[in-house]
Amino acid sequence: MPQTPHVEKHFTGSEIVRDIVIGMSDGLTVPFALAAGLSGAIDTTRIIVTAGLAEIAAGSIAMGLGGYLAARSDEEHYVSERKREETEVIEKAELEASEITELFQSYGLTPEESKPVVDGLRNRPQAWVDFMMRFELGLEKPDPRRALTSAMTIAGAYIAGGFIPLGPYIAISHAGAALKASAIITLIALGVFGSIKGHYTGARPLRSAFQTVLIGGLAAGAAFLIARAIS
Amino acid sequence: MPQTPHVEKHFTGSEIVRDIVIGMSDGLTVPFALAAGLSGAIDTTRIIVTAGLAEIAAGSIAMGLGGYLAARSDEEHYVSERKREETEVIEKAELEASEITELFQSYGLTPEESKPVVDGLRNRPQAWVDFMMRFELGLEKPDPRRALTSAMTIAGAYIAGGFIPLGPYIAISHAGAALKASAIITLIALGVFGSIKGHYTGARPLRSAFQTVLIGGLAAGAAFLIARAIS
Repeated sequence: MPQTPHVEKHFTGSEIVRDIVIGMSDGLTVPFALAAGLSGAIDTTRIIVTAGLAEIAAGSIAMGLGGYLAARSDEEHYVSERKREETEVIEKAELEASEITELFQSYGLTPEESKPVVDGLRNRPQAWVDFMMRFELGLEKPDPRRALTSAMTIAGAYIAGGFIPLGPYIAISHAGAALKASAIITLIALGVFGSIKGHYTGARPLRSAFQTVLIGGLAAGAAFLIARAIS
Repeated sequence: MPQTPHVEKHFTGSEIVRDIVIGMSDGLTVPFALAAGLSGAIDTTRIIVTAGLAEIAAGSIAMGLGGYLAARSDEEHYVSERKREETEVIEKAELEASEITELFQSYGLTPEESKPVVDGLRNRPQAWVDFMMRFELGLEKPDPRRALTSAMTIAGAYIAGGFIPLGPYIAISHAGAALKASAIITLIALGVFGSIKGHYTGARPLRSAFQTVLIGGLAAGAAFLIARAIS
């Protein structure tokens, strides 16, 4: 699809940030909450560390491989829709042309006003397909290297995030003491992560920090209460 | 944004399906893998059930609340970008108009061909803003009820998914036997879920089933091996 290099670059950058945010949000939160929950039921940290590492392995694979397959299926969707549009602009040219007219009509433009654009696109089939992909279907051409990069970024961010709450349980053998250290370190990490995330996503850093700390705290609190109630 | 009721309906439906897929993929996979992993290290199921329930609580809150805040931030992003466009079409009308011309030029259309559309939009400021939001920025107007629905759907699907692998550990006290029953039930559930998901997302059902079973199996296998290695 025709696009300025600047826009392309911006887009790729924001996708990597988005993947880091996806992986690290859950990586910081879920192992933290799981370990906190188990601290409400178990005194020694050995099993908590085992559960935490098992969770980090499971979570990073599930999220990374899930991200890989989602990106692959986006690619396939784009390719198949594009093939369909390529056939349609040839075989159903009148219908496709009237779809553009209708699209512009939904923005209050008369068929007379949009006619030169419609005619111009009809004379350039390749650009016409590009236009339909973007403007009728709202699909961006996916980067072919995207699936693998996305998978590795999400999984790596999940693992990096997961070792922060788990660290104290590895270092300290008493679950209660490890929980306190883990809660302090992880809530600080969630705050820092939230404010950096806010910086990249355009949200106010303090508010974003508050939100990530809230999610982590609520998830850990709920896990702790449930584990204590049933143990 | 002007949109036909049909498109609107289709879009909302696919968002709910997407939320169910997001929640249930992880809900089936991560508690399954965590419980399988702990079965490699612990003989009795009591702690595995505690860890599993803590994980379901943590995972559903993290994903649900995460989804809620993501949807809210999409809304805010849309509103703030729209405000900016509304100001710009008044204060920087020439610049905004030339942006449309350039947009069409990237599809091979000459300024002469796109002029009637550009002029038509300039005469209708509200439609002009709608047009810029959709075509320049690629932003859809978010549904205001979306954030809460999205959060509840993701969390509910995660919980529903999570109890499938955990069920056998609740019913059976020996971890090895529970693991076998859980693996059989969950891999079947992943296969059924994958093929239904394929039906909704347009992928081939068998291939989609194979993929979800693969993710679940790999995540559980990795968690099992890690837990067994360190225990």
